[in-house]
Amino acid sequence: MARVKVTVTLKPALLDSQGKVVQSALTQLGYEGVDGVRIGKYVELTVPDSENIDAQVKEMCEKLLSNPVIEDYQFEVIR
Amino acid sequence: MARVKVTVTLKPALLDSQGKVVQSALTQLGYEGVDGVRIGKYVELTVPDSENIDAQVKEMCEKLLSNPVIEDYQFEVIR
Repeated sequence: MARVKVTVTLKPALLDSQGKVVQSALTQLGYEGVDGVRIGKYVELTVPDSENIDAQVKEMCEKLLSNPVIEDYQFEVIR
Repeated sequence: MARVKVTVTLKPALLDSQGKVVQSALTQLGYEGVDGVRIGKYVELTVPDSENIDAQVKEMCEKLLSNPVIEDYQFEVIR
């Protein structure tokens, strides 16, 4: 089996309202200079290890784990 | 400035109902053998680089970005 770590974030061109709220909260807590806060989804899963694991995970990301219209995804396979 | 990547996940002992739903959806899409799906939060932020950046990010995670009672967090500082 292989462990896969997927991160899904909004495309950079889109306003990340959640990120803006977290950024202002961090500033109010006294953390100066915090910038560019982006909030996304993190998915960990275990899949059977195979030669086409990258293609399979890519397909999972595009079909279910992310919305390719507004989101970007990255994944890392850990064997 | 330094780029920080934070991942927040439910503690392993807790049932991850979101993860279970995604797992069954992946199985229905035909992906056999998918296991241990855990869903969490991913936060990217830019903070001023300093010697105590790790302590500062740790504090941000414990005060705002995660709920230490039910969640674990990990972060990576990229200079």
